[in-house]
Amino acid sequence: MEQQNVTTTDGEQAQGRHDAPVVAVVLAAGSGLRFDPDNPKQLVAIDGRPIVGWSIDAFERNARVSDIIVVVNAQVRAAIEQLIRDGGATKVRAVIDGGAERADSTAAALETLSAAGVPGDAKILIHDSVRPFVTQSQIDGCIDALEEFDAATVACPSTDTILLTEDLGDRQGVKSVPERRHSYRAQTPQAFRFATIHEAYALASDDPDFRPTDDTRVVVDYLPDTPVAIVGGSPLNMKVTTRDDMPFATLIAGEITKAAAKQQVHTMFQQALS
Amino acid sequence: MEQQNVTTTDGEQAQGRHDAPVVAVVLAAGSGLRFDPDNPKQLVAIDGRPIVGWSIDAFERNARVSDIIVVVNAQVRAAIEQLIRDGGATKVRAVIDGGAERADSTAAALETLSAAGVPGDAKILIHDSVRPFVTQSQIDGCIDALEEFDAATVACPSTDTILLTEDLGDRQGVKSVPERRHSYRAQTPQAFRFATIHEAYALASDDPDFRPTDDTRVVVDYLPDTPVAIVGGSPLNMKVTTRDDMPFATLIAGEITKAAAKQQVHTMFQQALS
Repeated sequence: MEQQNVTTTDGEQAQGRHDAPVVAVVLAAGSGLRFDPDNPKQLVAIDGRPIVGWSIDAFERNARVSDIIVVVNAQVRAAIEQLIRDGGATKVRAVIDGGAERADSTAAALETLSAAGVPGDAKILIHDSVRPFVTQSQIDGCIDALEEFDAATVACPSTDTILLTEDLGDRQGVKSVPERRHSYRAQTPQAFRFATIHEAYALASDDPDFRPTDDTRVVVDYLPDTPVAIVGGSPLNMKVTTRDDMPFATLIAGEITKAAAKQQVHTMFQQALS
Repeated sequence: MEQQNVTTTDGEQAQGRHDAPVVAVVLAAGSGLRFDPDNPKQLVAIDGRPIVGWSIDAFERNARVSDIIVVVNAQVRAAIEQLIRDGGATKVRAVIDGGAERADSTAAALETLSAAGVPGDAKILIHDSVRPFVTQSQIDGCIDALEEFDAATVACPSTDTILLTEDLGDRQGVKSVPERRHSYRAQTPQAFRFATIHEAYALASDDPDFRPTDDTRVVVDYLPDTPVAIVGGSPLNMKVTTRDDMPFATLIAGEITKAAAKQQVHTMFQQALS
């Protein structure tokens, strides 16, 4: 799949009406070495569908999302392109190459968007492909939050107390213990007005030691005056990191599939009776 | 069950040999309102056994644990006493009343231990009863760590980036994003030499605003020069917090039961063939 043009708003602007495009960036360039070197985790099937397929589909189904960019590596490109063709996704505008680190992949996506002329007020939702069960309300929550804030992230309160550690000889020791009520586990999507995330990455790119595991951090550290709103996440929006996560992921997928089937039957009955 | 004497080491000391007692404190005084007001979560059965039963049994089975104290509230006392009688636990020395907050329950246990003459070098392992799947290696890891450190806690690296938040109007906003490699999720047991945790709680008791959700924090905040070692935890040592956690908990319990049955069959064959 070749890179195509990403929606720009020139047309709408000419008509005096402006709905900022909503672009989902699905990051699927991870090597997933902790999972299985021979079988990248984004391609592992859950309930018969590759993990990255679940993620792309979540944004494809959301009517407010206008465009999708998928970031891949050479190892997974062919499989993901095939998956997109087979799945009939209509919003995927580009499948681009990412980089060695997560931040490199986000940066590559931002460059693609910039080259495509995406306006500064576009809403960019950056999502880890290995969080296959992101809900429509979480995606909507990000889009809504960007009406009020220039940055927002899905996160859920940590039920565990968080410990911040430091090196203590050959093991980790506890350095500080933040208040639990102020401790959140970041999930994705992480959402930004395009100008905001683009500027934050431009500032960060000058720092060779900066290797963020999270896009929110780039904004918090480089644009400290920009508030980042929390959008309610849930434990079901889990990240598939290791094989230990698979039983839980399979359980969630089964429940989602069951609920969808139930809904389908319900709709059929309603249509038959109406 | 009435309070009984907790092992003291006078006997061993008289013989010129000193093995510090290892006392497990199982906290089961939580009201669990987030779960079900009518059915306290520590009594909910997983795979046929109440959650608190799983927890007490983990310490009962560990040969290095000498004594167990169970902290309860009025609502669950009778059921837990019955459970201890039926389960044939031989190390439970006292079932005591806790307090409104978690820290009150720990403080009550420490007072009981102090009154029983437990020596300052006793190893105290404080455990949340709603973490039913603590492993023997995690318990052993705590006991071992206290040879080198006066405080240790089971924790596992956070696979999610952690966000520390602040109030942002009517929602939470991100204040800072600590390095993921230094972000751990605290689990239990949290383990301390008795003198250390007793002193930390004595210092904290003067502060009426101090309501820690975690015993490690009491040491980190009030005895800042005391290093607290991290003992490797795992996602399986999960906390049952809400009903959403039950499917995962049931899955883990099933795997544990299956593994135990397999081990039993294996042992039977070995005995038959030897």
